[in-house]
Amino acid sequence: MADNDLYPPQGLDALLLTPGADLRYLTGYAAHAMERLTCLVVPAEGQPTLIVPTLERPAAEASPAPGVGVRIVDHRDGSDPYPLVVSALAGARSVGLANRMWAEQVLALRDALPGVAQRLAGDVLTAMRMRKSPAEVEALARAGAAIDAVHERMGEWLRPGHTEAEVAADIAQAIRAAGHATVEFTIVAAGPNAASPHHEVSQRVIEPGDAVVVDIDGYCSDSTRTYVVGEPDKEFLAAYEVLQAAQRAAVAAVRPGISAEAVDAVARDLLTQHGYGDLFLHRTGHGIGLDVHEAPYLVAGNPLPLAEGMTFSIEPGCYRAGRYGARIEDIVACTGSRVRRLNTRSTDLVVL
Amino acid sequence: MADNDLYPPQGLDALLLTPGADLRYLTGYAAHAMERLTCLVVPAEGQPTLIVPTLERPAAEASPAPGVGVRIVDHRDGSDPYPLVVSALAGARSVGLANRMWAEQVLALRDALPGVAQRLAGDVLTAMRMRKSPAEVEALARAGAAIDAVHERMGEWLRPGHTEAEVAADIAQAIRAAGHATVEFTIVAAGPNAASPHHEVSQRVIEPGDAVVVDIDGYCSDSTRTYVVGEPDKEFLAAYEVLQAAQRAAVAAVRPGISAEAVDAVARDLLTQHGYGDLFLHRTGHGIGLDVHEAPYLVAGNPLPLAEGMTFSIEPGCYRAGRYGARIEDIVACTGSRVRRLNTRSTDLVVL
Repeated sequence: MADNDLYPPQGLDALLLTPGADLRYLTGYAAHAMERLTCLVVPAEGQPTLIVPTLERPAAEASPAPGVGVRIVDHRDGSDPYPLVVSALAGARSVGLANRMWAEQVLALRDALPGVAQRLAGDVLTAMRMRKSPAEVEALARAGAAIDAVHERMGEWLRPGHTEAEVAADIAQAIRAAGHATVEFTIVAAGPNAASPHHEVSQRVIEPGDAVVVDIDGYCSDSTRTYVVGEPDKEFLAAYEVLQAAQRAAVAAVRPGISAEAVDAVARDLLTQHGYGDLFLHRTGHGIGLDVHEAPYLVAGNPLPLAEGMTFSIEPGCYRAGRYGARIEDIVACTGSRVRRLNTRSTDLVVL
Repeated sequence: MADNDLYPPQGLDALLLTPGADLRYLTGYAAHAMERLTCLVVPAEGQPTLIVPTLERPAAEASPAPGVGVRIVDHRDGSDPYPLVVSALAGARSVGLANRMWAEQVLALRDALPGVAQRLAGDVLTAMRMRKSPAEVEALARAGAAIDAVHERMGEWLRPGHTEAEVAADIAQAIRAAGHATVEFTIVAAGPNAASPHHEVSQRVIEPGDAVVVDIDGYCSDSTRTYVVGEPDKEFLAAYEVLQAAQRAAVAAVRPGISAEAVDAVARDLLTQHGYGDLFLHRTGHGIGLDVHEAPYLVAGNPLPLAEGMTFSIEPGCYRAGRYGARIEDIVACTGSRVRRLNTRSTDLVVL
C-alpha cells in the first residue's frame, strides 16, 4: 500500500481505535471489546500499528488487517500495553479516540500521553461511514429481506397464551435458522407494555385484543411492525392510521439534499396535527450500517443534508402510557434521486 | 432511605454511571448502552438522579431504581442532556466515571464540567463488587451447574462432519432451552484452530482425531473443556496431562490471603517445569459476576490478597500454533477457609 491508505484526510495527527465498528470499517478486524487493550494506531503518515493481547494475535493475523498494511504487535497479560501506543504514535499532538472506547482506556491514554489533545475519531470517520457503497447498500437490502421474511411468519408464533419471551425466542430461532449468527435484540411488547418504546420482553401472556409491537434488530437490519391479536379497539385503530400515514410521508420525503431534521418534521407534524404529537416520544430515525444505531440521526436540530448512500430507519411511534403503543419502522437508503426501501413488507396493521 | 445509601464511603464527590454492570450493581437497572445518554449521578451526599432518554423512562420507572431512592429525570431526543448532569452534580470537584462509559460521553462530560477531575468509578466500586454475597455465590453456582449440564451433552453435537459453527448453534440452543436468556459467546475451536485462545467458530468441519476446545460463556458462568473426536495423539495427551495437573494445583492453592499472582504462578510454574511455559499465552483467570470479565485478575503483577466471596475463573491453557490447543476452565469461589468449585464436572479429557 501507499504510505498509509487508512487515514482519512482530516486534521488529527492519529486515530486510536479500540474494538468496534470504526476498527472494522478501516481494517475488517472484528475484535471483541474487553479489558485487555486492543488498539489500532493510525498515524496521519506512516504505517498503522495494531496493538493486541498476545492471546488475540492469531485472530488478528488471520483477520484482513495485515492485508491492508497493518503491522501487529502484542502484549502479554500483566504487561503495560500503553507504552506500545506511545511509541506507535511517534509524537502526535492530537488523537481521535474511537467514540465507544471505554473510559478506563481513555483515562489511561490521557495519563500515558500528557499534553496530547483527545478528540473523537467520529469527527473524521462519521462522514465516511455515513455514505454507504453500493455493496454495503445491497448487504443491508439482503438483511432487510431476511427480516421481512421473519415478520411474514409472525402468525405462527404470536398467539394468545404465549408469553412475550416465548415469542421472542421463536423469532431468534427463526433468524438463526436462516443462517444469521447474531440477533441484536428483539422487542415483543404486548398491550400496555407497548407504550414503553424500548420494552424488551416479559412473562406477560398475550391476550386477545392485545396490540403487539415487534421490533427485530439483527444482522444490521431493524424493522418494526405492530400486530393485533384478535379484535383491535377503535381508538388504537385511529392512532395507527395516522401513524402509518406519517411513516409513509416521511419515507416519501427522503431525497438528496433534504435535511435530516426536515424528514423528522414531516412525520412529527402529521402526528401533531392529529393530536398525537406528545405521544411520539423519540426521533424519527437513526443511521444503520456496521452499528445498528449510527449517524445520520433524523432528529430536530440536525441540519445535515441527506445524500446518496446514506441508510437509516424511518420509525415514528405513538405511545399512550398504560394503554397501548405502536411503531412502524423500515430501513431506507437515500439514492441519487429519491429513496429505496430496504424493508418492503406492507406497513398495514396485521390482525392475527 | 437514608440520605444516600448508594454511595460507597470513599473520596470522590460523585459517581457518573452509564449503562453496564456498575449501574446494575447499585440500582438493579439493566439499561442498554447506546448513543442516547443514560447516566446515574450518585453524589456523596443527597439523592441520586437517573438521567434517561424520554423513551426509556417507562423502563427506568419499572426497574428497581426508584425503590432504592433514585429520582428519574428524562431528556427528549434532540435536546442536550449534559446540563441535567451538571445540575444533578451540585458542584462536585471530582467524579468517578463508569469504567466502560463511552469516550464520546467522557469527552462530552469533560466539556460540560471544566475543571472537574475525572477518575474511574472502579476506584471505589471494584473493591465492593469483587466480594460477592452468599446469594451472589449461589447464583453463580446455579449458572455453573447449568453449563456443566451442557458440557455433559457435548457428545450429541460434537461429531466428525459437523462444523464448529453448527456445534456452537446447538450449544446456544441448549442453553436457551434451559431457560437462560442470553449466551455471551461460545468458542468451538477444532484442531489447529484451538491454538488461537479466542478463536470463536468457523466453517471448519471437525475431523477424526481433532482436539476441540469448547468454551461456553453465558449467564455469568464460563467453563471450558477440551474434547477429542476419535483417537488423540500422544504429544497432545502429554500436554493435556500437565495442563490438568496445573489447573488442579491452582484451584487447590486458592484460600483467603493468598495473592492473585501467587495462584497464577502455581499453574504457570508447573507448565514451565514441563516445558510448556511459553505455550501458556494468557493469565490464569479473571473475576466473574455481573461482568463475565471483572476483578480480580489472576495475573503476574497483581498482589491483591484473595478473600472470602471473590469468584473467578481458573483456566490455564496450552497453545501450539498451527497444531493444537487445550484449556481447562472452572469458576471457583474463595470461601472463608479454602475454595469451592462452582463448576464441578470432571476435568478429564473427553474422548468422543
